[in-house]
Amino acid sequence: MGVELHCRCIQTESKPIGRHIEKVELILPNSHCEETEIIATLKRTGEEVCLNPEAPWVKKVINKIISSSRS
Amino acid sequence: MGVELHCRCIQTESKPIGRHIEKVELILPNSHCEETEIIATLKRTGEEVCLNPEAPWVKKVINKIISSSRS
Repeated sequence: MGVELHCRCIQTESKPIGRHIEKVELILPNSHCEETEIIATLKRTGEEVCLNPEAPWVKKVINKIISSSRS
Repeated sequence: MGVELHCRCIQTESKPIGRHIEKVELILPNSHCEETEIIATLKRTGEEVCLNPEAPWVKKVINKIISSSRS
């Protein structure tokens, strides 16, 4: 079912890139990777960039995404 | 670049399913869908389930994911 057999992130993006983000994937620790991984897809290029789950700006971006939704 | 041409979520899961979640996708509003969409992939089945971005339990699950990471 498409589960990676290792961690997908080797390094993470340090610069806050919140406004370039189109989509964010939160991958929970699993049998193949002990770390929570956060992978952002960028708007213009569709590039995938790993984000540091512990970086304050990353938590801020994610909280902004989930609190900005209104039906 | 694989951007959907419409909203992917028609209905959302109301039952808290936090412990079954393997991965969560946060999709920001874009030209094709005005809503923030949250799509969870379930552990056992790999099934994709839409979550309500406004449901308190969804925000709690996401906050738990990003705060549980430790290097």
